[in-house]
Amino acid sequence: MDIKKYLNDKKEAVDSFLHAYFKEQRRPALLHEAMLYSLFAGGKRIRPVLAIASYEACGGKSDEIVPYASALEVIHTYSLIHDDLPAMDNDDLRRGKPTSHKVYGETIAILAGDALLTDAFSLLSDTTFCHTIKETDLLKALHEISIASGSMGMVAGQAQDILSENSVPDKNMLQFIHIHKTTAIICASVKLGCILAGGKPEKLEAISSYGMGIGLAFQVVDDILNVEGDTKEMGKAAGSDAKTNKMTYPSLYGIEESRQISKKLISDAIDSLASFSSAADPLREIALYLLNRRN
Amino acid sequence: MDIKKYLNDKKEAVDSFLHAYFKEQRRPALLHEAMLYSLFAGGKRIRPVLAIASYEACGGKSDEIVPYASALEVIHTYSLIHDDLPAMDNDDLRRGKPTSHKVYGETIAILAGDALLTDAFSLLSDTTFCHTIKETDLLKALHEISIASGSMGMVAGQAQDILSENSVPDKNMLQFIHIHKTTAIICASVKLGCILAGGKPEKLEAISSYGMGIGLAFQVVDDILNVEGDTKEMGKAAGSDAKTNKMTYPSLYGIEESRQISKKLISDAIDSLASFSSAADPLREIALYLLNRRN
Repeated sequence: MDIKKYLNDKKEAVDSFLHAYFKEQRRPALLHEAMLYSLFAGGKRIRPVLAIASYEACGGKSDEIVPYASALEVIHTYSLIHDDLPAMDNDDLRRGKPTSHKVYGETIAILAGDALLTDAFSLLSDTTFCHTIKETDLLKALHEISIASGSMGMVAGQAQDILSENSVPDKNMLQFIHIHKTTAIICASVKLGCILAGGKPEKLEAISSYGMGIGLAFQVVDDILNVEGDTKEMGKAAGSDAKTNKMTYPSLYGIEESRQISKKLISDAIDSLASFSSAADPLREIALYLLNRRN
Repeated sequence: MDIKKYLNDKKEAVDSFLHAYFKEQRRPALLHEAMLYSLFAGGKRIRPVLAIASYEACGGKSDEIVPYASALEVIHTYSLIHDDLPAMDNDDLRRGKPTSHKVYGETIAILAGDALLTDAFSLLSDTTFCHTIKETDLLKALHEISIASGSMGMVAGQAQDILSENSVPDKNMLQFIHIHKTTAIICASVKLGCILAGGKPEKLEAISSYGMGIGLAFQVVDDILNVEGDTKEMGKAAGSDAKTNKMTYPSLYGIEESRQISKKLISDAIDSLASFSSAADPLREIALYLLNRRN
């Protein structure tokens, strides 16, 4: 299969939905502008694409998944805006563009993040997009997403990441940070697809293993790219982790072992889909794509 | 009826639930501490109490409402933490105590707010508390809360409030700010109670009118107290609105007319409950209590 075409087609479906959903301006102009600036700053929409691919792998057949999958990108965007704030990672550049607070100031950047996070839950609870998807499954999927994003998920990872800067390197701590900050929401993305497709418990379990594997691998590859990547290709400053003394896989395991770890995670993730038909081929291909990406 | 006892009993039910729900620490210690510091800083729990009173007015009979009503306080607490930030209102004092960023620093204050907001949606989608409450009603109520809190609700109000500082006083703008920043979530609180009780559309409509009325009155009274109140009694700095040139009802209408406006709003709100039995007496009494409060 042509995985690049698949990724691009799904990305376009997500972009097109997000444009339509957010275009109507019934909010203060500057808030609206800041929300859209970050939402359309050129993300790969990998979380929504994973949700769609998982939905299809679990037997889902319609486009109904697109709005709910898109909500994942809305949450991801909020997290990037807040992570970049001066009080957090203090980053000036994101996806090759000035960060939100650089363009709109801290006040609006904080509020744009708050708004996107809240609006994501409005979208995830909007039953006007439900036809074959069951409302009770939607509630269950929303719950998974909220747990993965909250104080025992993504926010815990970000808090620990910042609290651990300049501290003694510790492999358990590093794993805690990566699993909470990145893996949890990626895993919740594929779970969302499976739940909304009405996937059986054993399918959901297999999908979760896949999600945990690719989610952690995704962050290990990110760490490697931060050392080896090209600032222009990545759209953010290479070497920034070392500069802020962040704990990373390369800093604790070295580049070569980090590469082996990510390969093993991806290979195990693909193995966990053994019981799935060729409908799961996009999930398999995406796993390999994430391993070999350059940005 | 003894409204003070009613308010206190319901407040205790909410406090007791929130203690149990958040006590288990499976998050970074400082994040956990900051979340609980603000959550238990002595709020009156007026939004949850309104949700419970509305649930009872609409025929709800069980304690099942308490967890979902409590989620409103979790959202309210997030909004206070973020509103107090240096990049927002830059307040040092809240409910008589140092604000979150004064105690924990900006990084943790932002993350504690993010975590509380997200966790509120985890709580609102947690079906383990549902027995007689329908899951589809829970999803509907969650949707109302998210709309009232998001970019076309509370966040819009806060954004416009800050963007309007030092601008030419404008009654329409003032109403926009108050309706979005305060009224929307108070109205959503009583709607949540009605929806979870399975209230009919005409009941929901009446409850919404009541919510809009008391929600706006609540903020007008807040504006008056900011001018006339006592810093110690209120637990926050009196006169702070005038100092930052905030648009308020007293600054645009004068104290006397502001008082008349709030009285009329409360009286209309009570009238909109005409079709309700004595089960709605707590809602009626709360309206009068909000009008006559001193903090």
